[in-house]
Amino acid sequence: MGITTDRFMHHRKGAPTTPLITIAMTEIVAEVLEKNNLPGAIFTAFCGGAEIGQAIAKDTRIPLVSFTGSTKVGLMVQQTVSERFGKCLLELSGNNAIVIMDDADIPLAVRSVLFAAVGTAGQRCTTCRRLLLHDSIYDSVLEQLIGVYKQVKMGDPLEKGTLLGPLHTHASKEKFEKGMDIIKSQGGKILHGGSAIGSEGNFVQPAIVEISPNADVVKEELFGPVLYVMKFQTLNEAIEINNSVPQGLSSSIFTRKPEVIFKWLGPHGSDCGIVNVNIPTNGAEIGGAFGGEKATGGGREAGSDSWKQYMRRSTCTINYGSELPLAQGINFG
Amino acid sequence: MGITTDRFMHHRKGAPTTPLITIAMTEIVAEVLEKNNLPGAIFTAFCGGAEIGQAIAKDTRIPLVSFTGSTKVGLMVQQTVSERFGKCLLELSGNNAIVIMDDADIPLAVRSVLFAAVGTAGQRCTTCRRLLLHDSIYDSVLEQLIGVYKQVKMGDPLEKGTLLGPLHTHASKEKFEKGMDIIKSQGGKILHGGSAIGSEGNFVQPAIVEISPNADVVKEELFGPVLYVMKFQTLNEAIEINNSVPQGLSSSIFTRKPEVIFKWLGPHGSDCGIVNVNIPTNGAEIGGAFGGEKATGGGREAGSDSWKQYMRRSTCTINYGSELPLAQGINFG
Amino acid sequence: MGITTDRFMHHRKGAPTTPLITIAMTEIVAEVLEKNNLPGAIFTAFCGGAEIGQAIAKDTRIPLVSFTGSTKVGLMVQQTVSERFGKCLLELSGNNAIVIMDDADIPLAVRSVLFAAVGTAGQRCTTCRRLLLHDSIYDSVLEQLIGVYKQVKMGDPLEKGTLLGPLHTHASKEKFEKGMDIIKSQGGKILHGGSAIGSEGNFVQPAIVEISPNADVVKEELFGPVLYVMKFQTLNEAIEINNSVPQGLSSSIFTRKPEVIFKWLGPHGSDCGIVNVNIPTNGAEIGGAFGGEKATGGGREAGSDSWKQYMRRSTCTINYGSELPLAQGINFG
Amino acid sequence: MGITTDRFMHHRKGAPTTPLITIAMTEIVAEVLEKNNLPGAIFTAFCGGAEIGQAIAKDTRIPLVSFTGSTKVGLMVQQTVSERFGKCLLELSGNNAIVIMDDADIPLAVRSVLFAAVGTAGQRCTTCRRLLLHDSIYDSVLEQLIGVYKQVKMGDPLEKGTLLGPLHTHASKEKFEKGMDIIKSQGGKILHGGSAIGSEGNFVQPAIVEISPNADVVKEELFGPVLYVMKFQTLNEAIEINNSVPQGLSSSIFTRKPEVIFKWLGPHGSDCGIVNVNIPTNGAEIGGAFGGEKATGGGREAGSDSWKQYMRRSTCTINYGSELPLAQGINFG
Repeated sequence: MGITTDRFMHHRKGAPTTPLITIAMTEIVAEVLEKNNLPGAIFTAFCGGAEIGQAIAKDTRIPLVSFTGSTKVGLMVQQTVSERFGKCLLELSGNNAIVIMDDADIPLAVRSVLFAAVGTAGQRCTTCRRLLLHDSIYDSVLEQLIGVYKQVKMGDPLEKGTLLGPLHTHASKEKFEKGMDIIKSQGGKILHGGSAIGSEGNFVQPAIVEISPNADVVKEELFGPVLYVMKFQTLNEAIEINNSVPQGLSSSIFTRKPEVIFKWLGPHGSDCGIVNVNIPTNGAEIGGAFGGEKATGGGREAGSDSWKQYMRRSTCTINYGSELPLAQGINFG
Repeated sequence: MGITTDRFMHHRKGAPTTPLITIAMTEIVAEVLEKNNLPGAIFTAFCGGAEIGQAIAKDTRIPLVSFTGSTKVGLMVQQTVSERFGKCLLELSGNNAIVIMDDADIPLAVRSVLFAAVGTAGQRCTTCRRLLLHDSIYDSVLEQLIGVYKQVKMGDPLEKGTLLGPLHTHASKEKFEKGMDIIKSQGGKILHGGSAIGSEGNFVQPAIVEISPNADVVKEELFGPVLYVMKFQTLNEAIEINNSVPQGLSSSIFTRKPEVIFKWLGPHGSDCGIVNVNIPTNGAEIGGAFGGEKATGGGREAGSDSWKQYMRRSTCTINYGSELPLAQGINFG
Repeated sequence: MGITTDRFMHHRKGAPTTPLITIAMTEIVAEVLEKNNLPGAIFTAFCGGAEIGQAIAKDTRIPLVSFTGSTKVGLMVQQTVSERFGKCLLELSGNNAIVIMDDADIPLAVRSVLFAAVGTAGQRCTTCRRLLLHDSIYDSVLEQLIGVYKQVKMGDPLEKGTLLGPLHTHASKEKFEKGMDIIKSQGGKILHGGSAIGSEGNFVQPAIVEISPNADVVKEELFGPVLYVMKFQTLNEAIEINNSVPQGLSSSIFTRKPEVIFKWLGPHGSDCGIVNVNIPTNGAEIGGAFGGEKATGGGREAGSDSWKQYMRRSTCTINYGSELPLAQGINFG
Repeated sequence: MGITTDRFMHHRKGAPTTPLITIAMTEIVAEVLEKNNLPGAIFTAFCGGAEIGQAIAKDTRIPLVSFTGSTKVGLMVQQTVSERFGKCLLELSGNNAIVIMDDADIPLAVRSVLFAAVGTAGQRCTTCRRLLLHDSIYDSVLEQLIGVYKQVKMGDPLEKGTLLGPLHTHASKEKFEKGMDIIKSQGGKILHGGSAIGSEGNFVQPAIVEISPNADVVKEELFGPVLYVMKFQTLNEAIEINNSVPQGLSSSIFTRKPEVIFKWLGPHGSDCGIVNVNIPTNGAEIGGAFGGEKATGGGREAGSDSWKQYMRRSTCTINYGSELPLAQGINFG
């Protein structure tokens, strides 16, 4: 997905696999604009792939390119836009962890992990992909989690009661299956799920994987319902694992201790753009600044400062007197 | 010049041609830090050239690289820092214009142009390099300007009364001389100055050049005392010329009309980061947001928002209840 | 009119002479609240006079009383609310001046004065009540103004083309007529209008009065279409006259000179809460902070800070560590 | 104490009992001003009593009166200043409670209460005057508290190790003794201290008093080292008692539970201007907004908004075009 703007216009390129959504959204926006006596064409849409994205990135008439997508493509967009001194607003990959401390409200935490790891079939930038469990509750939480995974109702997401729909495309399904192989080759142990279901549709069983935080595969974003489970002894160790991936989008801790909460939120805590306590990684409320640090790209949509990214800031000085004040008390002539 | 920071340390690389200044500055800062019970080594300095700059740009331990220098090098720094998902704060080339309207306070404007074009021998990022004169006052202003240029006292900048010192290095002097040749080859007419003075030191006569706004040389920053003079008929034309260069650092207009002032300051006016009225392009007061748009790099030092560039922003949500609120009213499970 | 709030409720008392408006407004608000799933009863209304107002002022269950009305009643409300340590937000009398400088756009200024002095029959808190004319344009502006006053169409305000409707009540009409007598007794010269029209309805002819800025009657707000005209020689004199009344709501200057504009807007200019340039005193746009200084009461409705007046501010400090930090480095025990 | 300002000057009246402090402070400020090239006389001081205070309150040349003192005198100052439409900034009486929950860090809490109730001999606006103990820890905390009260070293406050100095004046000592009689007459039980020590100096033994939250004496501020101890069962009950006095300056809770912390800090928690967690009522750091609600007067010194109280806010609109935009889309003429 790519959203782009110039001073008067807002152009949008949707994912090449979702042309109908792109069209539907454009029509909704046009309707709203026209109701407010603004030309609907202010917001235009493109359907297409990389070649359209590339054209947008290069076009000097577009001062700001807001890109949501993978780190790899985001970096290419940024380099291209920078070369022509345009601005970028990047929302790239996430690799979000939930930390469960030994004093946590376990039923709350388990429900949160389920929602964060399985919801939208793990295809959300804020999906929980890593679960960090304190040693003392490791076995118990894992058992409960596998229990609730077993009860997840799969099927048509428009039907009431369905918790898990299909993957986005057939390619996603293939990537998921290939991912399982890589996981196994790197020492990962699949505790639950992990295989595709049937040949029709793109349904897969959500996977729970026991793996070392140092495995290479854990540092990457596999865009589907895979949850890597890891063990830690101390808060500092949990923070270190949380911060050890290139991405820095979202993160959550489950605890009841104020000293843990504020350490987690503070400068020596999570290094992500979204830092939650007792809610899942995907518990972002509309209105907060949304985005992440490091390989997530540093951009922020919404929040108190986001409007500034769409503006030009000028430092204006008006001399309305008849004398010439020089900068910083300089004498000249 | 390059200034860089990590979470606890601030490293600085001065220009390779000014090692003594780098050392002196480091000692002054260390003294201030120690007076405040902070280790002097928080602020360290490097002397060196491109290879040190390159090392800084690549070093993942340095989250933010603040670079002040040319657009060409700045772009390289940004590409390198982006590849490792660091942040850049760029203060790059300027190509700053002063516009003089027909209703301007001419003596005030002439003094301002002199200070902005000749001060520090034109070696300031906010030096005025382009002078846009309204048709009706073109001849008169030009005559007055040449008159004051003739009176500029050149010599040792530490002596009282000296307005113009030497260029920074011998290489700068050679670039200046070569620039004069390019100017002439692109149709520029040298109205005043433009030659080097003597063989000792790096002194040059500040140049006034009549040239078309479309000449290629006008789009670049020649880092020395060269002033390109151009004619316009209307405010819109003046704004168009002002905005027609790749750089977007500073800009000034001289006028007494409110409608001209506010057009110039507004969205259809100057596209620079610094937009002045009745003061020169280099009239920036300490405290305002300093920096520019387009090829100037978009960074801002100082000003109300600049501290944010040195911080990590986290959106924090604490759930202190016993229920699990899902984002945006979602039902799950 | 009186608007009052407690933490969960908003009570409103309209003027005793406008019960239908109070009821109609309450119904509109209730509809909006209910559309948003809020109980309509959050916003309740009272019809009644001083005894209801007094009860509101005394009631400790109402933390904030927002009062719009006369300075005399506002002061009583404030004293009563203060005694019980409630908060007040006061929008009291205005006595607003328009200053016309010798360089002003005279047709723009004349139209502005007409709208500001005659619109809503002078019954607006931001109505222009004082006109300060530079000596050199005094006669000419006055002549033009009397000319346009003569063309004002009076009648039913719901009919298209009507510029002037009746006064609010019969009592207002009597006050207007009595005011004319006081004006004459204090040396005022009625240049235009000033008498009631017919015996039916509460119509009066808008008055233009030549009078000294020192006359007592000029210091008060006569709530109807009376315009006091005065002469000045210098900007400083105009500012002094503008600031010489107890009220400090709105003020305007008409000029084209930046040095006059910024003096007027600055610390040595108008002392009002609303300070305009080249628009009338009643040209306030929705969204700006609305209210005035001195006898106008100091309250501000709308604008970036107004929400704070409806909030409780707490300075919160959480110690989440196990040590006891004492304030300001104190040692104890 | 009373601090007052006009646009260019700052006048200060100290307490009539501390003339030497007033003079010393004035000299220190003058020195600082002169070091900064400002006239020392900008900050002037008065020594004197109510008649000087009254003169300040009435003087229309003083736009803002900042008063720190009792609620009774503060109310008089406000009424007088309001009558002339000046502004007041009030820092009046406090009656501050510390709540200790059953899960609190008891040693931390006991030390905090000692510092807050006995420090500066209870003569601080933020002194803890009420101690609310959860039923289950009531006896134990009380026992520990009496234990530490017994070890408090009394004497010359300039000597190292002294924790408790004398009361401010002989009159304060008499008020303290009289207060003990009133406490007893309203059912209070003196558990520790409460009598004057010797006939020389103004030393008194700090008192711990068991009393009902409904006793009249508990609603007032006795400006000395008296601590009223009360029992509660639930957090809601503790909040209700905390909020049941007229004053609203400072308040603290000791707990380790996030749900208690955030309830206490929120709209249904403490109604004071200063709301602390796990630090005493007098743990205010320099820089926070300092002041309180209700009978404490509503003023705030320091904090992000305090500068606004010393400023005049103007809503400025400049029309720099040649058309006349009327407010809110009105058509006129």
